[in-house]
Amino acid sequence: MTDAEKSLLLSRHFEPWDRMDEADQKDLLAHALLTSYPKGTNLHSGESNCVGLFLIIKGSLRTYMLSENGKEITLYRLSEGDMCVLSASCVLSTITFDVHVDTEEDTQLLLIRATYFEALSERNERVECWAYKLAAERFSDVMWAMQQVLFMSMDKRLAIFLWDEMTRTGNELLTITHEQAARYVGSAREVVTRMLKYFASEGIVELSRGGIKILDKSKLRSLTQ
Amino acid sequence: MTDAEKSLLLSRHFEPWDRMDEADQKDLLAHALLTSYPKGTNLHSGESNCVGLFLIIKGSLRTYMLSENGKEITLYRLSEGDMCVLSASCVLSTITFDVHVDTEEDTQLLLIRATYFEALSERNERVECWAYKLAAERFSDVMWAMQQVLFMSMDKRLAIFLWDEMTRTGNELLTITHEQAARYVGSAREVVTRMLKYFASEGIVELSRGGIKILDKSKLRSLTQ
Repeated sequence: MTDAEKSLLLSRHFEPWDRMDEADQKDLLAHALLTSYPKGTNLHSGESNCVGLFLIIKGSLRTYMLSENGKEITLYRLSEGDMCVLSASCVLSTITFDVHVDTEEDTQLLLIRATYFEALSERNERVECWAYKLAAERFSDVMWAMQQVLFMSMDKRLAIFLWDEMTRTGNELLTITHEQAARYVGSAREVVTRMLKYFASEGIVELSRGGIKILDKSKLRSLTQ
Repeated sequence: MTDAEKSLLLSRHFEPWDRMDEADQKDLLAHALLTSYPKGTNLHSGESNCVGLFLIIKGSLRTYMLSENGKEITLYRLSEGDMCVLSASCVLSTITFDVHVDTEEDTQLLLIRATYFEALSERNERVECWAYKLAAERFSDVMWAMQQVLFMSMDKRLAIFLWDEMTRTGNELLTITHEQAARYVGSAREVVTRMLKYFASEGIVELSRGGIKILDKSKLRSLTQ
């Protein structure tokens, strides 16, 4: 990837870029590393060191909470053009919790290491401010997810998840396991399997070894509302 | 309250204060209104207009989420010297969710109205940055609360709540209803009542019409761990 291509990406997705002087921009370009990770890689977790900022070029990331006994709650997902800031949370003094970030597919990203980002945001208040502003946006995502998990009935949550997956992939056959679906909606596999069987009995979906096929879109749609 | 007293409060609890010029400080003083609310007043909610920043002088505030069917989840509580920023969320473009804020006791606060705060943070980047930084701190509080609600067993949650209440009030007799306790731990009253009866049978608490009395602190303590 050329510096010109990196510049273009940063000017599009890193708000402070346009107000940085040329020397700072050049320095940042030299420190923005093109990296690739296969699907299912854990990029950031509570215990590991704080990696840095990710700008997603291709692929997607899932951010989740993990309980002591392994239960996961998906908080939000990021895709092309999104910046992941919680993977650099060590730089942000008021962020005192830890989340986990995994690749959901083969993912290519621009990495700005935490140590470099820390120095940059110390000498450039705008960069620091941008990071907190972005963290507040993620806060909004998390609150939305919490509303779902805490208040919404299971059938509605699952229907919304299936609908979103179908829309996102453009495919009526969803190649996901019940285990994965359970993780996304923040529930147990058994609960999801039971609910999917109910959906199947209603003619909404068809279950097979390969995944979940949406049969009746309008019925599914009405469940999401 | 004199301007000198207000200045002192702001310089202690409003970080950008010391780096504002004298004219801006004077203007802000004129717009920081001393207000009082009785216990149980709803100061901010999803539907109502966005009030502004609160600096708590005396008393305490509870911030919570509310579902369509009235279920509440307490997110965090603020007390003397704390600033409430989510009550001015309309000023912060990346905050797109709404919470509810109630007084928990008779509360006195300094109010900076949203319209004034908006103008101030538009002309002073530091103020805007401070607000987002504070929002990220609240994000951390919320994540902690979510960990509790989503992952922690009910007995542990309730024990932690009772322990915290005892420590906070300095009193072994907690004058709270089961309804209130349920609201704080994000559960149903029936569930809390059942768990309290179990605690009573274990000699940890004594239940009466007036409230909940802690009898065995070391047993309660061990439940919180």
